[in-house]
Amino acid sequence: MSTEQVPTTLPFVGGKKATPQHPLGPLTAGEITESAQLIKALWPSNANIQFKSITLQEPSKAELVPFLAAQRLAQSTATIDRRGFVLYYIRNTDKLHEAVVNLTHGKVDSNLRLGPNVHSNADGDEIIAVEKIALEDERVKAEIAKLQLPEGTVVISDPWIYGSDGIDEGLFTDAKRMFQCFLYVRDPNNAAEADSNHYAMPLSISPVVSAETMKVTRIDILPTGADNTIKEPSPYKVQPPNEYIHEAQNLRTDLKPLNVIQPEGSSFQVSNFSEQGHNIAWQKWDFKVGFNQREGIVLYDVHYAGRPLFYRLSLSDMNIPYADPRHPYHKKAAFDLGDAGAGIMANNLQLGCDCLGSIHYLSAILSNDKGEPLPMPNVVCIHEQDAGIGWKHTNYRTGRAAVVRNRELVLQSIITVSNYEYILAFIFNQAGEVMYEVRATGILSTQPIDEGISVPWGTVVHPGVLASHHQHIFSLRVDPMVDGPVNRVVYDEAHAMPRSDFNPHGVGYTVSETPITTSGGYDLDFDANRIFKIQNSTVKNPINGKPVAYKIMAPPFQKMLADPESFHHKRAEFADHNIYVTSYKDDELYPGGKYTNQSRGGTGVRSWADRKDNVLDDDIVVWVQFGINHIPRIEDFPVMPCEIIKVSLKPVNFFDKNPALDVPPSEQSFNKSVLASVGHQQEVGEAVIGKDGDVCCVKESSKL
Amino acid sequence: MSTEQVPTTLPFVGGKKATPQHPLGPLTAGEITESAQLIKALWPSNANIQFKSITLQEPSKAELVPFLAAQRLAQSTATIDRRGFVLYYIRNTDKLHEAVVNLTHGKVDSNLRLGPNVHSNADGDEIIAVEKIALEDERVKAEIAKLQLPEGTVVISDPWIYGSDGIDEGLFTDAKRMFQCFLYVRDPNNAAEADSNHYAMPLSISPVVSAETMKVTRIDILPTGADNTIKEPSPYKVQPPNEYIHEAQNLRTDLKPLNVIQPEGSSFQVSNFSEQGHNIAWQKWDFKVGFNQREGIVLYDVHYAGRPLFYRLSLSDMNIPYADPRHPYHKKAAFDLGDAGAGIMANNLQLGCDCLGSIHYLSAILSNDKGEPLPMPNVVCIHEQDAGIGWKHTNYRTGRAAVVRNRELVLQSIITVSNYEYILAFIFNQAGEVMYEVRATGILSTQPIDEGISVPWGTVVHPGVLASHHQHIFSLRVDPMVDGPVNRVVYDEAHAMPRSDFNPHGVGYTVSETPITTSGGYDLDFDANRIFKIQNSTVKNPINGKPVAYKIMAPPFQKMLADPESFHHKRAEFADHNIYVTSYKDDELYPGGKYTNQSRGGTGVRSWADRKDNVLDDDIVVWVQFGINHIPRIEDFPVMPCEIIKVSLKPVNFFDKNPALDVPPSEQSFNKSVLASVGHQQEVGEAVIGKDGDVCCVKESSKL
Repeated sequence: MSTEQVPTTLPFVGGKKATPQHPLGPLTAGEITESAQLIKALWPSNANIQFKSITLQEPSKAELVPFLAAQRLAQSTATIDRRGFVLYYIRNTDKLHEAVVNLTHGKVDSNLRLGPNVHSNADGDEIIAVEKIALEDERVKAEIAKLQLPEGTVVISDPWIYGSDGIDEGLFTDAKRMFQCFLYVRDPNNAAEADSNHYAMPLSISPVVSAETMKVTRIDILPTGADNTIKEPSPYKVQPPNEYIHEAQNLRTDLKPLNVIQPEGSSFQVSNFSEQGHNIAWQKWDFKVGFNQREGIVLYDVHYAGRPLFYRLSLSDMNIPYADPRHPYHKKAAFDLGDAGAGIMANNLQLGCDCLGSIHYLSAILSNDKGEPLPMPNVVCIHEQDAGIGWKHTNYRTGRAAVVRNRELVLQSIITVSNYEYILAFIFNQAGEVMYEVRATGILSTQPIDEGISVPWGTVVHPGVLASHHQHIFSLRVDPMVDGPVNRVVYDEAHAMPRSDFNPHGVGYTVSETPITTSGGYDLDFDANRIFKIQNSTVKNPINGKPVAYKIMAPPFQKMLADPESFHHKRAEFADHNIYVTSYKDDELYPGGKYTNQSRGGTGVRSWADRKDNVLDDDIVVWVQFGINHIPRIEDFPVMPCEIIKVSLKPVNFFDKNPALDVPPSEQSFNKSVLASVGHQQEVGEAVIGKDGDVCCVKESSKL
Repeated sequence: MSTEQVPTTLPFVGGKKATPQHPLGPLTAGEITESAQLIKALWPSNANIQFKSITLQEPSKAELVPFLAAQRLAQSTATIDRRGFVLYYIRNTDKLHEAVVNLTHGKVDSNLRLGPNVHSNADGDEIIAVEKIALEDERVKAEIAKLQLPEGTVVISDPWIYGSDGIDEGLFTDAKRMFQCFLYVRDPNNAAEADSNHYAMPLSISPVVSAETMKVTRIDILPTGADNTIKEPSPYKVQPPNEYIHEAQNLRTDLKPLNVIQPEGSSFQVSNFSEQGHNIAWQKWDFKVGFNQREGIVLYDVHYAGRPLFYRLSLSDMNIPYADPRHPYHKKAAFDLGDAGAGIMANNLQLGCDCLGSIHYLSAILSNDKGEPLPMPNVVCIHEQDAGIGWKHTNYRTGRAAVVRNRELVLQSIITVSNYEYILAFIFNQAGEVMYEVRATGILSTQPIDEGISVPWGTVVHPGVLASHHQHIFSLRVDPMVDGPVNRVVYDEAHAMPRSDFNPHGVGYTVSETPITTSGGYDLDFDANRIFKIQNSTVKNPINGKPVAYKIMAPPFQKMLADPESFHHKRAEFADHNIYVTSYKDDELYPGGKYTNQSRGGTGVRSWADRKDNVLDDDIVVWVQFGINHIPRIEDFPVMPCEIIKVSLKPVNFFDKNPALDVPPSEQSFNKSVLASVGHQQEVGEAVIGKDGDVCCVKESSKL
């Protein structure tokens, strides 16, 4: 594929050095191609290289901070070399390499063979190959034959990253990179429907495929009872299907359209700071948007009214451990970013389907397993939304109401990880708040269960179908710059005053502030109203003298339930505390470690925190964990209504008054609302009388 | 005022018995007038009666349950007498009476003198009278004179309900009903501006007015330092103002309009089940809406697809205790519903200001202190809103995405309680969920503080202005009817499995369910993922056999900090637990007790729970507490950006699959979204270059 053919959001300028790329600009198609070529040149021409990732190697913060500062002052900036990070295998071997290429000087800076026990993420081509290998294996076919499936039935294979369990992974034996395939059938009575929901029809046969030899190494038979007894596959009982596709439903007919119209266009501005990097400005906010294979959206250099707030913001990883302790389910513990990638799995968003209103889309360019540029159209949608009333007060003496609405800016990306979907969004408002919202939807990962059985580690969501409990634990990486690069984290607590002559009625209470001095993991305590704040102790509020700060409002979640000695716990190093605070180090971006696939632990945020570095008034990183313990409801099947979790970063004594005070009033001339029509009122009475037989209805409503 | 003149949402039919009112219909203007007349007839014609409340006396549940059931089946219903509840004083005495009048038979059923130590809510006319009395008092004027305020300065008086403290309220002395007035000035340099924010200019003089004698009984001087030293009022230093009104701001000019258009009208239907009561039907939901002086919106008989869910839903009370232990601040602990009333304080909502889109308004009729009907126009707005994606899945094998949006129905009411505002809303969605949302906004209650002083129980939000910490603790009353009137509350917890041969890797976990058998207060435990569910143990899910249930998703909050021996704690009986479960009793509607003004405790939900009634498979009531410990930020002044708290009630194994599965697909033909315009893109580049001097911007963006 010639780079000239890659469609992008901008006229394509390939790898030409004519305009030097900004140091934070995602790699261009030309730079991806050049990076691959530099690596290929290291090997014999017949070497078969499997590229896993070709992405921007971000410059050191030491180089970037002065660069960005100078740029904001429109001063001349030092040139910073463009570098690419390249992760690759020699195909069909376990020879994993990470390399850094210097694109400014067209040379390879470093090329390191990794391992043992270090494995890369899966890639799309590999996954599809593994699906086929599992289904074409003669021994697998023999097992499937025992099910006596109806002629024409389609069998589906869902390969899963294979979690470490310490078995066959001793100190002296390498862990081999494996895929555990879970098999399903599409509705045998509707085999032609390619979008039939196979998760409603799980099979008990589970082949294991080696990513190295690309062969089936073992076939597991899944336990289907209340214990871990394994039964020989026997003739499959076809149950009714459970489809999510619209044409399989009797759709509601009484939902009227709701359109969001911005007659004068949107209030935000988008421009490019490099070929693939975007600047966004909206309502006193401005920041740079990058996009990469692993994290998807990355925000850089976030400012409000010219004041720095955050150097870098991104979802850094997530872990989803499952509750079923039985083999092979105990291995289910996916790192959806580290094992796969939020960027590479991003949906191509469709106007009017995934976003409502006046939408601007950003496209990206990532890479495929051959080292070619991979166009990723419409991976980010940007729009404004109305979020209800922003603030209001009525002076009861004059009857005058002052009210403004709360407009928000949303940057949304949606990822599909096999069965599940995550809708990921950064949301900004006019009161100086930035939020990160996750909506969990998609389809539960299911497994077969014998009829009439129920187990305490899962919910039966369809006849013969068990959805195991599982946790979703996310880590938002916050690299703060609150009024400057030197920050601290403190936590406030509210405590009752003891009774005394000063507090004779026992009603007083006070708030205390405690600084965090040493890197570590810290927890919320709602009974103490404990709230963590990122503070700049050198900048004081002009009115009340308090240090300027942003507080972290994170919802509660149950920490990882797998025990501390388990591999799940050792690997998901962020899953045991609400907040981690570490000292900044270049390349410490991923709290579960850089290589999570079958990882063994010891390379993530817990390990960095264990350095016990000073984090008081230093260059620090704050990791905010949040999540849900998903105990499936039958209402979550065959596709789950969004479960919404939100983290907010809110100013605390950062401004000198309500920053949304200058939002224009909420007025009819601007909002153009209408009264629900009277004619419509009349239909109504009739509609309701049908429902509850209230004889008043028709008479009363027809009066309207 | 003749009842014929009362404007309502409907042609007015006065008190005529022609159409019998539905038992749940709020009192009509005619019924209010008749109720007052029945009470007046009990007394000599020259008796001066101060009516505090004239509202519907709801029939007993024993009568109503069969009535509503028969009505739904369109069967004939027994006639239920209409009754009014009347609360009144003999004016200028402490003689408080509660009476029940039978409007069907035009007689007084009961008339009871209350007390001692039982006091009614404040009313609007009384508050305004108290303001005047405080300012006209010669001793108060003498204190104000000491401040040497500039000529023309306007002094404002904010009367506060006077919290009990046990002082002068011994067993043998009655507590007298008092108002504590906090004084402020409007900006002396802008004295003509009636909407100048006086909360930015608090005075240290605080008169106390007796509601019985309507005279100033005492003048408190407020402590203004870090201790409880009282200083003689001295010449007042005029500080700069801090206004919230729009014309005082330099308003943003870059916010483009955002309109919500429903070209075919709204999807909901509104009709009347009685003159003042409304039926609402929307997306398989139907319920009755009432409105009263104390609770504002009350929902009755909530059904989904014909299945009963809730018999009655309302915000039942809230308590706001303050953190300053010093006299007289230790008395600040308002019950905004019991002491004032969410209905009577409801704003007259304005089209396009308080609500966006296609809006339907409901009006109500309450009563004034003379026993006359008081029209309350537009106290409830009803509209639909788009709440983002409802569910989505993409089949990565076919690339086909199925996606629906999440439409919500909102019933919103906004109340002004002197300085504060609460935006209160019931929100329904298409997945069978009902939410209760509170947005706290308005202005902080402020007090004077000496310059340069800071205290741990409050935040300086303006020179010389302290906003004390305070808690907002709300109680949502849920009278459930989940598939029938007999329900139980259970809680689920997730626990790690111990290591064993069955759980050799230490990753397994299970969920246990514990039923609540005895009435009491219960708490959340996020470390156990404890979740409370309202369950009908007699109705099993057809697929997985689990009892149908609705779970209560409530956010964490810090329980009341005032100590258990304090009057704050004794009075706000709901403030110490996340959940209370009680057995149903008619008239047990208010968890802080029926009469909260200067209450002494012992009459609320804690006391009812102490009966230790059976609540297993019985007619029960569930009280859901939530709130915030408001540690003021300077960003919360002069008016605070909405702080949003939400409680959700979600189906758990109540349906047999995702109830939103039949929502029509999210499609461009329906949603009519647009791409942000290119012309707009070009502006942008220029806008951004101004901001951060990135020389790429103009060149790159002009290519667009």
